[in-house]
Amino acid sequence: MSSDTLAINTIRVLSVDTVSKANSGHPGAPLGMAPAAHMLFSNIKANPKDPNWPNRDRFVLSNGHAVALQYVMLHLLGYDLTIEDLKQFRQIDSKTPGHPEFHTPGVEVTTGPLGQGISNAVGLAIAQANIAATYNKPNYTISDNYTYSFFGDGCMMEGVSHEAMAIAGHLQLGNLIAFYDSNKISIDGATGQEFDEDVPKRLQAYGWEILDVADGDTDVQGLYNALQKAKLSKSKPTCIVMHTTIGYGSVHEGTAAVHGSPLKPDDVIQLKKKWGFDPEKFFAVPQQVYDHYSKVAEAGAKAEAEWKKLFAAYSKEYPKEAAEYTRRENGKLPQGWENLLPKYTSADPKVATRKLSETVLSAIVPSIPEIIGGSADLTPSNLTRFKGAVDFQPPNLGIGDYAGRYIRYGVREHGMGAIMNGIAAYGLNFRPYSGTFLNFVSYAAGAVRLSALSGHPVIWVATHDSIGLGEDGPTHQPIETLAHFRALPNIMVWRPADGNEVSAAYKVALESDHTPSILAFTRQGLPELEGSSIEKASKGGYIVSEAPSAAKLILVATGSEVSLSIDAAKLLEKDGIPTRVVSLPDFFTFDKQSLEYRKSVLPDGVPILSVEVLSTFGWSKYSHAQFGLDRFGASGKGADIYKKFEFTPEGVEERGVKTVKFFEGTKLLSPLDQPFLQIQ
Amino acid sequence: MSSDTLAINTIRVLSVDTVSKANSGHPGAPLGMAPAAHMLFSNIKANPKDPNWPNRDRFVLSNGHAVALQYVMLHLLGYDLTIEDLKQFRQIDSKTPGHPEFHTPGVEVTTGPLGQGISNAVGLAIAQANIAATYNKPNYTISDNYTYSFFGDGCMMEGVSHEAMAIAGHLQLGNLIAFYDSNKISIDGATGQEFDEDVPKRLQAYGWEILDVADGDTDVQGLYNALQKAKLSKSKPTCIVMHTTIGYGSVHEGTAAVHGSPLKPDDVIQLKKKWGFDPEKFFAVPQQVYDHYSKVAEAGAKAEAEWKKLFAAYSKEYPKEAAEYTRRENGKLPQGWENLLPKYTSADPKVATRKLSETVLSAIVPSIPEIIGGSADLTPSNLTRFKGAVDFQPPNLGIGDYAGRYIRYGVREHGMGAIMNGIAAYGLNFRPYSGTFLNFVSYAAGAVRLSALSGHPVIWVATHDSIGLGEDGPTHQPIETLAHFRALPNIMVWRPADGNEVSAAYKVALESDHTPSILAFTRQGLPELEGSSIEKASKGGYIVSEAPSAAKLILVATGSEVSLSIDAAKLLEKDGIPTRVVSLPDFFTFDKQSLEYRKSVLPDGVPILSVEVLSTFGWSKYSHAQFGLDRFGASGKGADIYKKFEFTPEGVEERGVKTVKFFEGTKLLSPLDQPFLQIQ
Ligand SMILES: [Ca+2]
Ligand SMILES: [Ca+2]
Repeated sequence: MSSDTLAINTIRVLSVDTVSKANSGHPGAPLGMAPAAHMLFSNIKANPKDPNWPNRDRFVLSNGHAVALQYVMLHLLGYDLTIEDLKQFRQIDSKTPGHPEFHTPGVEVTTGPLGQGISNAVGLAIAQANIAATYNKPNYTISDNYTYSFFGDGCMMEGVSHEAMAIAGHLQLGNLIAFYDSNKISIDGATGQEFDEDVPKRLQAYGWEILDVADGDTDVQGLYNALQKAKLSKSKPTCIVMHTTIGYGSVHEGTAAVHGSPLKPDDVIQLKKKWGFDPEKFFAVPQQVYDHYSKVAEAGAKAEAEWKKLFAAYSKEYPKEAAEYTRRENGKLPQGWENLLPKYTSADPKVATRKLSETVLSAIVPSIPEIIGGSADLTPSNLTRFKGAVDFQPPNLGIGDYAGRYIRYGVREHGMGAIMNGIAAYGLNFRPYSGTFLNFVSYAAGAVRLSALSGHPVIWVATHDSIGLGEDGPTHQPIETLAHFRALPNIMVWRPADGNEVSAAYKVALESDHTPSILAFTRQGLPELEGSSIEKASKGGYIVSEAPSAAKLILVATGSEVSLSIDAAKLLEKDGIPTRVVSLPDFFTFDKQSLEYRKSVLPDGVPILSVEVLSTFGWSKYSHAQFGLDRFGASGKGADIYKKFEFTPEGVEERGVKTVKFFEGTKLLSPLDQPFLQIQ
Repeated sequence: MSSDTLAINTIRVLSVDTVSKANSGHPGAPLGMAPAAHMLFSNIKANPKDPNWPNRDRFVLSNGHAVALQYVMLHLLGYDLTIEDLKQFRQIDSKTPGHPEFHTPGVEVTTGPLGQGISNAVGLAIAQANIAATYNKPNYTISDNYTYSFFGDGCMMEGVSHEAMAIAGHLQLGNLIAFYDSNKISIDGATGQEFDEDVPKRLQAYGWEILDVADGDTDVQGLYNALQKAKLSKSKPTCIVMHTTIGYGSVHEGTAAVHGSPLKPDDVIQLKKKWGFDPEKFFAVPQQVYDHYSKVAEAGAKAEAEWKKLFAAYSKEYPKEAAEYTRRENGKLPQGWENLLPKYTSADPKVATRKLSETVLSAIVPSIPEIIGGSADLTPSNLTRFKGAVDFQPPNLGIGDYAGRYIRYGVREHGMGAIMNGIAAYGLNFRPYSGTFLNFVSYAAGAVRLSALSGHPVIWVATHDSIGLGEDGPTHQPIETLAHFRALPNIMVWRPADGNEVSAAYKVALESDHTPSILAFTRQGLPELEGSSIEKASKGGYIVSEAPSAAKLILVATGSEVSLSIDAAKLLEKDGIPTRVVSLPDFFTFDKQSLEYRKSVLPDGVPILSVEVLSTFGWSKYSHAQFGLDRFGASGKGADIYKKFEFTPEGVEERGVKTVKFFEGTKLLSPLDQPFLQIQ
């Protein structure tokens, strides 16, 4: 048996043992992709002892259900993942969960939800191209890593992969090399039932290079040759189509039966015997195989050491660039960056928060090279393009270059979200932001969820945040969107009321290393508030306007409804109801404040009415009564729609009066007090 | 000027006037697509006086921002849409909102969010193929309508269109003819910045036929020839690629400037003059143009009259089929269908609700021909395939036929959702349902939102509804999903606790003509409850287990947490806390009950603790304290994860005790009482 074959069979057997021990998982894909994994991980540039080395090759397992394969490879290469860890596969609190998770050393991105990984890979490749264009100098190739990805039929069916792979083709990302595990089987059975498209032709239509390996089950040399050829494709991403047999070696190979359940014990025995393994032994790795991968790891460690030498020389010749690179590697924003944030007083003119967002971006992005922006084909509406921006484009198109920091994503919100995750996952403190209408962040829900789960600090510039957008009508007016993302763990959902709150939202979002944010901005103009400040708004919630005497009512609002509530408070005061107005731009940040502070804002004994022109769902957490919009909006002038739904000072006043009357004589508790805390 | 040219220029001028009068909207696409609209609407089979005739051709404007064009065409053809209505374009409460809405006569589906319309069109074509295969007989072609769609670059970029168009290719839908408005311009400017894929090649890869019309601006004959040729393509959907000039006729034609803002008055004047229209006149339609379209409408009326004669003859020869067709046309389910729903007692064994769902489907679907099911490549997990199902497949593949009612959607949740909307929009009482994991319904959020907005009664079979799914881990375990959809207007989100509740969920979902539903089912087994019944559960919420004496605590729960809460109640009773358990399988349905009923379930004076192993967000609407999961889950055995997060009888007991203590001595109001109702 050749050493390649031994290694491949070891990977297969170890993957099978891992799944069998867990009595749960997916043996089919690891058996089919073992040769590609062996070939690729024998040629990868990575130092398992320093999984954070910035110039390492990135590997993304887009068909994340094949994770047993990835854990096996990480173990063999010497990452901090032992045979014991493999034995704990899919067990509670283990290092080897059921799908790859970002926090495991050697795992670049969390995958499993199909189509996300290959889309993250596009982001990783964009990040590399940007770093290379920004920091490489003659004789100093600081960045030249590749991004590799495995993906399967499921990934190809998902819309998110279409979006991201089309962008990769347009951007001519030659540093991206993907391996397509074409096995003609999916969960429902033969893919011919549902999936018979010509994948190579489709990818060529996007501008990809296609290479074909007819026998992906055994032809290691063919896979190697394809990899070398792919590296020569400098202005196109490459897809290596590997024709493989799912569950190779199992008596059920080539069928859906091997996809998602452990092999039967008999099947495991025959498979081990066939390949010369002792069927009585489990998790057995021939020393020869360990030795093989040790050499790969050693080469990686050597490559890193050489890179460090190169970087030291670079630091002397290019001290400014090197210092910036090092600052980014340490995850620190430029010192004093927050002083660039604009501040406002109530003397400043009325302006839309999307416009105030543009002002922030133009003030800060030129000075913070790790911020990389974009929009899903709504640049003139989202106002996401900062002053002096250069587009991130292939230089040969003549409309930008790879050092550019503004990405034209096209109408591809989900791909954009997944690409932002990939850019953030690259490291070097990348902070991607992108624009679309708030309502269409939902198109990217799958990617947003993974931002939150992995803690990628990406920022959504979500404009046109309510019925205030007007004529485009209910198809474009968000109702449920804020509730959706407020219910998602580990994400901020800011809806600022004025310029100071916009600055605060960006400040907190950029200072958060491990929490993504959605910033919801208006299309319509809003007044600058007398009671706002960056400092106060940075707490997520605060008293923006105090009652002239002991408050008999508290209005708690966000965004465009804060100034509306302040106007209503004036009417209510005339009705003999002294009214406090609380601005609550971000629930997540407010919830992090001390109970004492929060209760100083929303105390016991006073009825609290929430005012927000979207779904009331969830607002009872902060209020005793809610005024919102639990129906779809309407097409018309923004002001007319506000009026139709009684979001006027008088409409709020009327509901304020009703709220006070309703709770008269009731001893009200602040909704913030709870008998116990949730498990975190 | 030829009569075609006159009609086309009239369409253009009328569209421009419509947008200008509103001072809002998109003139560019109507100007570019006017020739195609004229040609198509001169050849469409439709009776404007009966927009619901089942065998009419369907037209879908996927680039819905071009809606002024659609309104103009509907007006010219004689639908119930006057010049006055055109003048009210984008004004509040008008019949001409900013994007096409399903409820307008002649508008088949609500569009605007890009990519949805062309995907709905795939559903409309599937529905037609199914009706034809089911009801057509020798000499009786009851159904032969086409589905036409216009779409633009934006639609092609969106992932949802990739998913749906790939399905259309696989399904060989020869009855689907799409017109691609290729104008090389999007909002951000030239599409070369972001979109340079080879669209024809990509569509060919899916199995589409491609026809090309080089001059879409003027070549009406070329467009007509393409349409005739497309009709000959019986086993492939066709895309007619029209090369057009956005804003044709404007001084800014061919640029992004004409996309989304009205033309300048000077520009309108020069455009009208150029085409021989009086620039002083607005909304002027030459009688010759009205006459032309009257003839089309007359031909449509005649076609319907002939069809009715044919159907009368059919009714004599095929009385059973005709009666069924007529029943469906009247929107009535088969009489007594609900008697097929299984009922259970607590003597029945423990079983997963996804399995109980399969039992319902197998019991009812064979008898209800308008139900058409499917899954996003998770059939063996979702258990969505009913007993005796035949796959909906092109007959030549040998794995089903077009009369089949089970669709293999592939891993394409968003496309699946949009296709279900299209099937439902076809009429004839179609009730599509489809399966995926609850967590991945979010991938289809854009389509689900449009189901709710349009009131398409589609059903999501959303299995693996919590951490109870176990080893697949946090990437697959929903946390925010229920809150997301509970916050969306006009959608039911059922999470049944046992077999009777599963039957109730299907009963209410199928009886609802204008409300979609998501049915969340467990992977793990649940006991049949003593206190459940179809009747009680059909109210959305009820007392499933009463306290032995006056309740000192109410536990309100859903799904797998109901039996858990009943177990906890037993422990709490030993602690001296008589506890009522309320099952609340669907908020939407419960909210529709009288306040009196609802308060009989959740009364004043008793602390209420919610128990649901997902986000607590929104639960304060029904409870004073919440026990949930406001963090991501974990990979491990289902039971281990429940334990880790203390979702055990003891964990619930502990929190129940804390809740009672916390509120001791406080006069509690039912959270159901509110000072005012939301505007509906
Ligand atoms: Ca596969
Ligand atoms: Ca376009």
